[in-house]
Amino acid sequence: MDRLPRVSPHPLEPLFHPAAVAVVGVSKSPENPGNQYFRQLLAFPFQGPVYPVGKEEKEILGVPCYGSLAEIPGPVDYVISCVPNRQGMALVNDCILKKVRFLHLYTARLAETQLPEQIDLEREIAKKARAAGIRVIGPNCMGLYCPDVGLTFRFSFPREPGSIAFVSQSGGNAADLEYQGVGRGLRFSKIISFGNASDLNEVDFLDYLIDDPQTRIIAMYLEGVKGGRRLFDLFKRLDGEKPVILFKAGRTAAGSRAVVSHTASISGEEALWAAVCRQYGIVRVHSMWEMADALLAFQLLRPSGGRRVIVMGGGGGGSVAAADVCELEGFEVPPLPPEMREELKSLAPEVWSMISNPMDGSVMGGMGIMRRCYQMGIDWKGADIVIANSSALWLLDHPDGELFHRKGLDYLINLAGKAGKPMVIIVDSGDPLSSWRVEATRKARETCSLAGIPVYPDIQRASRALAHFTGYHRRRARRR
Amino acid sequence: MDRLPRVSPHPLEPLFHPAAVAVVGVSKSPENPGNQYFRQLLAFPFQGPVYPVGKEEKEILGVPCYGSLAEIPGPVDYVISCVPNRQGMALVNDCILKKVRFLHLYTARLAETQLPEQIDLEREIAKKARAAGIRVIGPNCMGLYCPDVGLTFRFSFPREPGSIAFVSQSGGNAADLEYQGVGRGLRFSKIISFGNASDLNEVDFLDYLIDDPQTRIIAMYLEGVKGGRRLFDLFKRLDGEKPVILFKAGRTAAGSRAVVSHTASISGEEALWAAVCRQYGIVRVHSMWEMADALLAFQLLRPSGGRRVIVMGGGGGGSVAAADVCELEGFEVPPLPPEMREELKSLAPEVWSMISNPMDGSVMGGMGIMRRCYQMGIDWKGADIVIANSSALWLLDHPDGELFHRKGLDYLINLAGKAGKPMVIIVDSGDPLSSWRVEATRKARETCSLAGIPVYPDIQRASRALAHFTGYHRRRARRR
Repeated sequence: MDRLPRVSPHPLEPLFHPAAVAVVGVSKSPENPGNQYFRQLLAFPFQGPVYPVGKEEKEILGVPCYGSLAEIPGPVDYVISCVPNRQGMALVNDCILKKVRFLHLYTARLAETQLPEQIDLEREIAKKARAAGIRVIGPNCMGLYCPDVGLTFRFSFPREPGSIAFVSQSGGNAADLEYQGVGRGLRFSKIISFGNASDLNEVDFLDYLIDDPQTRIIAMYLEGVKGGRRLFDLFKRLDGEKPVILFKAGRTAAGSRAVVSHTASISGEEALWAAVCRQYGIVRVHSMWEMADALLAFQLLRPSGGRRVIVMGGGGGGSVAAADVCELEGFEVPPLPPEMREELKSLAPEVWSMISNPMDGSVMGGMGIMRRCYQMGIDWKGADIVIANSSALWLLDHPDGELFHRKGLDYLINLAGKAGKPMVIIVDSGDPLSSWRVEATRKARETCSLAGIPVYPDIQRASRALAHFTGYHRRRARRR
Repeated sequence: MDRLPRVSPHPLEPLFHPAAVAVVGVSKSPENPGNQYFRQLLAFPFQGPVYPVGKEEKEILGVPCYGSLAEIPGPVDYVISCVPNRQGMALVNDCILKKVRFLHLYTARLAETQLPEQIDLEREIAKKARAAGIRVIGPNCMGLYCPDVGLTFRFSFPREPGSIAFVSQSGGNAADLEYQGVGRGLRFSKIISFGNASDLNEVDFLDYLIDDPQTRIIAMYLEGVKGGRRLFDLFKRLDGEKPVILFKAGRTAAGSRAVVSHTASISGEEALWAAVCRQYGIVRVHSMWEMADALLAFQLLRPSGGRRVIVMGGGGGGSVAAADVCELEGFEVPPLPPEMREELKSLAPEVWSMISNPMDGSVMGGMGIMRRCYQMGIDWKGADIVIANSSALWLLDHPDGELFHRKGLDYLINLAGKAGKPMVIIVDSGDPLSSWRVEATRKARETCSLAGIPVYPDIQRASRALAHFTGYHRRRARRR
């Protein structure tokens, strides 16, 4: 992974590099959220001191536990609050006395309850904090993951930093992006779960990320905006200089209703969002897996706006489907030109007439011819992008099937390294429910990921991700 | 599985119940296709005698191997040909002498090569066979799977029969349907891979299946039709009496080109196909996973044309996405009525205001309240269909997460059994690349499948399958 310079002159920069963290509302129960935050920061580990604060314990995991923020001997600039909502105002008071700069409220059951008294309480907490110069993240959110200082809200996030920042109104979706993409290679500079956005919101974070030298790609999950027009102004200012991959939910009447009870937001006009995304080159996705798929292309592939695809591998039915799907996603799947057909004729005299684009791997009658055909396909100047299909799971029914499949995959990975153009691999598992097939699929995908090649579970998802990726780069090339 | 009466008066009935099978072109090499067919029929086992025929061996796996069909002592009504294309005419002669009724040509490199001499050879083989009263399946295909007599072309197909017939121009797609659906519960009366269709084609098979008492649901993968208008006439005759799930590939220019080199077919006008499907109530899908998803609903759910969905479980972000996706698929996700909100108020005083439809499982603060809410949701007369989301994979990060997830799933499965309306479960794995998460997901899906409940990997696929299913039943109800 590329390690980029870590400081930015932006006023939010210290938020991502706190010197000392206190977790308030910690008990000894492993189910207690404060306990979980504390254990995660110890385990990751966070680079500075981490203080547990809880009324009932003297120590947690061998670390002294303090009855209040005031009792902590050293300074604390970042507080994670796991106290119940009714203790929120008192905690803000403590933070003011302790000169805390940032308060993350995991604390929930505030405005998202839609009850007037809780809406008021949320507003009061934020108002009091802001008046004292404390910035608030949340409430009702998971907070920050910032691997280069060891800040996290999940044990399973990678220690290794990357170049993607994810700004998410939903904490669950931050976890979901991990499941969808980390195994396939996604790595992050920051993940920000900001929930009800009583103070800091999507606009503040995007404003920071535009100039963050650690962040090359920006991903956002939004349900509604508090910043209104200011978000669109930032999109305009950015104008695609860094790719923004946006999942804006609440597109429908039912979705908008669900938004209110989730993060107390107003989702806004779908038509307006669609128009803004088109105008400013925002890459719009509609699920977390579509987001992970797109991010994988942006993180791992060299820029290309090319539309001409060559597909290789898979059987006959798979080849027909691949051609359809790619064309429907806006790609061309050009037929092989006469001079290549002639070359194939001498190379593979028995099967040449059946080899086209897509190249049906099942007609070639052996690895020798297959390799020569694939090499030709990779070298072909008529294709900008390569989609290789390594989904021959039927191989696994052969006695040496897994070894055979693995050899083919190693060959494709080797090709990808020398391709000189973007190449992705499909390893389609279907939904087999036998352990060994599931494990064989997992291993094959892992092999691609470790080699730094985007891997997708089917042609639909591969071509959609590539359509997002090449569309962004075509727009960018036009505007230069 | 329902066991239906097995005989039909249709002239193709004997094809699916041969008395004795010969596999021609068998050697001792496990890579030899004839060897594989032979081993599969022994292993399944096929209910009658299976004779290997090969010039070079005296016995295969302890069974005498014959030098030609003529040497086989008993009668043979069904022949599987794995000989090279140039031996095809001689084999037809042998079949005529042996009084064979059906010849399956796994043999390939005929019309699909697009070479004039091979196109002629395919035509001559079919013509000669037909003139002698022999019906031909293929060439360039996998042939028949018919579990109640033990006929198969894959080791891994289930022994247990079911009520779905799949007619596929692609052998690879037959295998793919297995990967996509058998683990989740799909079971078949027949799978027919018919390739180049030099004699028997999709029209013959559909004509048979319409009256086949073993077949309740018909699935088709087609690239082009040989039967032309006759297929549409059958669709008209059927008029949705049995559901037909059709994946017609070759929708685009690139797809149509790929069709020619795969099965030597002409894919035809996409607009015509779309119109015919609309008119005759054919359920149109566009991938093998979409086909498996739809078939799962048709096989396992009681008929319903209802559009009103209740979604339960999943987190806040997942709930918003679920509402959007369901509405975009044509479902209503109605808000809970005031009387249910009042009931929730006494049931769950701390969280009632955040419980809506979708029911966000993460706000409920424990299994006790969750169960009562889910029970209310299931009982609600305002919903026709239940989608339960058991995707809380973050649970797995807890020390007892897998046990907890399993308990929740068992509860949902229990609910489904008593729901009195169609219910499906989503177990979303993302694409995690750690073995234990993959295995936990697999086990959870298996648990649903063993309980006979349709399980889907995400809300998009669940709601698409339900849209196909309910759309079919709405049309059917209107026409009665």
